[in-house]
Amino acid sequence: MSTDLSEVIGRVVPAPENFLSAEKLESARKARRRFMGTALAMGAGAAGKAIAAGGEDAILKMPDHTTGLGMPVAMEPGYGSPSKWETNLRRRQSPGLTRVDAASVSFTPLQGLFGIITPSGLHFERHHQGWWDIDPSKHRLMINGLVKRERVFTMDDLMRLPSVSRIHFIECGANSATEWGNVAVPTVQYTHGMVSCSEFTGVLLSTLLEMCGYDKKNGKYVLAEGADGSSMTRTLSIDQAMDDCIVAWAMNGEMLRPENGYPLRLVVPGVQGVSWVKYLRRIEVGDKKYATKDEAIHYIDRMPDGTHRQYTGIQECKSVITTPSAGQTLLDKGYYNVTGLAWSGRGSIKRVDVSADGGRNWRTARLEGPILPKALTRFNIDWVWDGKPAILQARAIDSTGYVQPKINQLRALRGTRSVYHQNAIQSWLVSENGEVSNVQVY
Amino acid sequence: MSTDLSEVIGRVVPAPENFLSAEKLESARKARRRFMGTALAMGAGAAGKAIAAGGEDAILKMPDHTTGLGMPVAMEPGYGSPSKWETNLRRRQSPGLTRVDAASVSFTPLQGLFGIITPSGLHFERHHQGWWDIDPSKHRLMINGLVKRERVFTMDDLMRLPSVSRIHFIECGANSATEWGNVAVPTVQYTHGMVSCSEFTGVLLSTLLEMCGYDKKNGKYVLAEGADGSSMTRTLSIDQAMDDCIVAWAMNGEMLRPENGYPLRLVVPGVQGVSWVKYLRRIEVGDKKYATKDEAIHYIDRMPDGTHRQYTGIQECKSVITTPSAGQTLLDKGYYNVTGLAWSGRGSIKRVDVSADGGRNWRTARLEGPILPKALTRFNIDWVWDGKPAILQARAIDSTGYVQPKINQLRALRGTRSVYHQNAIQSWLVSENGEVSNVQVY
Repeated sequence: MSTDLSEVIGRVVPAPENFLSAEKLESARKARRRFMGTALAMGAGAAGKAIAAGGEDAILKMPDHTTGLGMPVAMEPGYGSPSKWETNLRRRQSPGLTRVDAASVSFTPLQGLFGIITPSGLHFERHHQGWWDIDPSKHRLMINGLVKRERVFTMDDLMRLPSVSRIHFIECGANSATEWGNVAVPTVQYTHGMVSCSEFTGVLLSTLLEMCGYDKKNGKYVLAEGADGSSMTRTLSIDQAMDDCIVAWAMNGEMLRPENGYPLRLVVPGVQGVSWVKYLRRIEVGDKKYATKDEAIHYIDRMPDGTHRQYTGIQECKSVITTPSAGQTLLDKGYYNVTGLAWSGRGSIKRVDVSADGGRNWRTARLEGPILPKALTRFNIDWVWDGKPAILQARAIDSTGYVQPKINQLRALRGTRSVYHQNAIQSWLVSENGEVSNVQVY
Repeated sequence: MSTDLSEVIGRVVPAPENFLSAEKLESARKARRRFMGTALAMGAGAAGKAIAAGGEDAILKMPDHTTGLGMPVAMEPGYGSPSKWETNLRRRQSPGLTRVDAASVSFTPLQGLFGIITPSGLHFERHHQGWWDIDPSKHRLMINGLVKRERVFTMDDLMRLPSVSRIHFIECGANSATEWGNVAVPTVQYTHGMVSCSEFTGVLLSTLLEMCGYDKKNGKYVLAEGADGSSMTRTLSIDQAMDDCIVAWAMNGEMLRPENGYPLRLVVPGVQGVSWVKYLRRIEVGDKKYATKDEAIHYIDRMPDGTHRQYTGIQECKSVITTPSAGQTLLDKGYYNVTGLAWSGRGSIKRVDVSADGGRNWRTARLEGPILPKALTRFNIDWVWDGKPAILQARAIDSTGYVQPKINQLRALRGTRSVYHQNAIQSWLVSENGEVSNVQVY
């Protein structure tokens, strides 16, 4: 800790969706000064206790929640919801991104989240033909192709099998696509909000393939097929399929949410989200790649020389600072806890460095919580803002030694016409007025 | 794996709240036989594909979700919910347990959960004066008593400080209290449903105490006080306070839920839930135990010799099988994945053994997912039911070497008049008809 926290007077980082208006900003600063004045004048003695109980406007009156009877347990529907004060934190669609809202994207509000688990209600969405709430008693999974015993499983058949529970991130291959160009979308929700992290429970795909007696000689690939109208089908190599893929029915302790593939989805740790086929209904073992529409035409990397790179599924090492981030406003100079997320499709996070001067100097951040392979890792680092313009960046290094590249390094290899697999260092400019915005640093 | 899974034909473990009625059970068994007959007769070829798509009643008709356009992304309120097919899984109040619903308990439906993370919407509740949804902009935390610098913190002040994110269980001291006697409540939701496990984010209490310059010579205890009407106040030793306690604002990635203390609660890893003071508004450093009503009169252990054991907060090592468990029905003999949870307030889980014959023979279960200190650990083990009566038990051993006791071992030390800290091995009887019920084995 480079700062003596006992000398730090609180500053505020709100997490709005957009910059504060000039009036709101001035009002927030005034309220802040008024409170600090009151608190300093009063000390924190007996009157401070009244403040603690009810805020500075209620010094003489205890609040209702200290005197009254609150709400009952097990309120209908027997399933809780976030506070009414948190309704601004929601997944959001990028207006105009697609023509049909059912074939679109909603982004996770990373700027307002904590730790590594994404609340299921805020998990990002990417649907190709909308989402469904399928009756699990009618859902089936078929395994066919190069297997000795073709089978059809009910959900009950699957859920009685040996299961595993693992925490993994899922990231859309197109996450941060806007940063290939210089679109500079306004918040981290839109630059990086197509990544989420959950605990998944299900049966290993390898268990099912063994049960069905897959052809170990000729079975080189696996096709995964979803039951929704988008005919989502993706090829996996048999090595991937036999490694750590999970045929999952649960996410964060409960059954999958409808938007995330209820009642069954494929979990392909480290690989882009499109391969995590939702509403999974069929696994076929084959001897060659299937070249389906969603791997031959879509989800390909357009390279500088005009060629198309296909079957590029692994999400390389990446990180982003989530607070302070674009769209937020720093109300005052002084101490901040800079926090963010790092992840790698190839293993675990080894180190995260943070720069406040656009990459000239780096300091190593603290990694908090469990550091798990192919999962989000939370990092934190102390920073004292001196009120001058600053450029905040995070750079992650994974267990293979891979170092997250700068945007110009990535462009040198991959050009600027790509949509997918943009994992460059993200830069946030803190201006003198405290506004944070999305900039590109070369 | 002791069983060749390829030879296993699926059996069903439903997770109802109560036994199936005789008619429903017969109906479920008939449907099962009908499906197996169809599936075996057809094989899993082309017609099987139709089954996979829409269930056996829809062989000739593709279901709507395969042909139509589904629901849009980012549906109002921009925050998702569980499937409509999962509404039976809810937290439930035990009728008549208390006179006022606001001062009561609701239990987590462990029988239907997976992994180690408890969905926040199903986190158990224990309120002493009901729950509130407090305006965070008005909430304050005061730190006073034996400190050099008394302080009042706003939420913004706290949330800009260095934070940690850790996964911990919280268990009410009275969890499984019914098993002290021989009440044999009907499901694991009511025997063990006052335990949950989440990722918490906040500032270490030690950071705050250091900031305020706590008295290292005379400061031996800490009082934590909540803002709700129950005047919940609890004493912690300064060693506990300076160890791993968190002043937390977030749970499972988002701000705390109102029922769980929004906007601020104390996290006291390994210690009974009552010390995790909700709506936390004050921390006082003192030189002796505070002997508040909730530690001098309530939350005490009544010992066989008539004395009262006080300040017994640590939740000892414990485990329970969640499926199959009381209230569930096994539809057929054959293979089952037996699964459950283990935890210890003193460290991490080292091993879980499972018996199917009431404790005469034990086999070691697989521990799944991250094994974290003072967190739930998921275990799984294969079991083939031969159709005869069986008694399922789990026994956990923690990293200190402590072995979860039998109920008669616990009673020998603590008598039968206690309410709290019942951590004995739980027994489930599987009857010949497949019904699972709560029994005590001495």
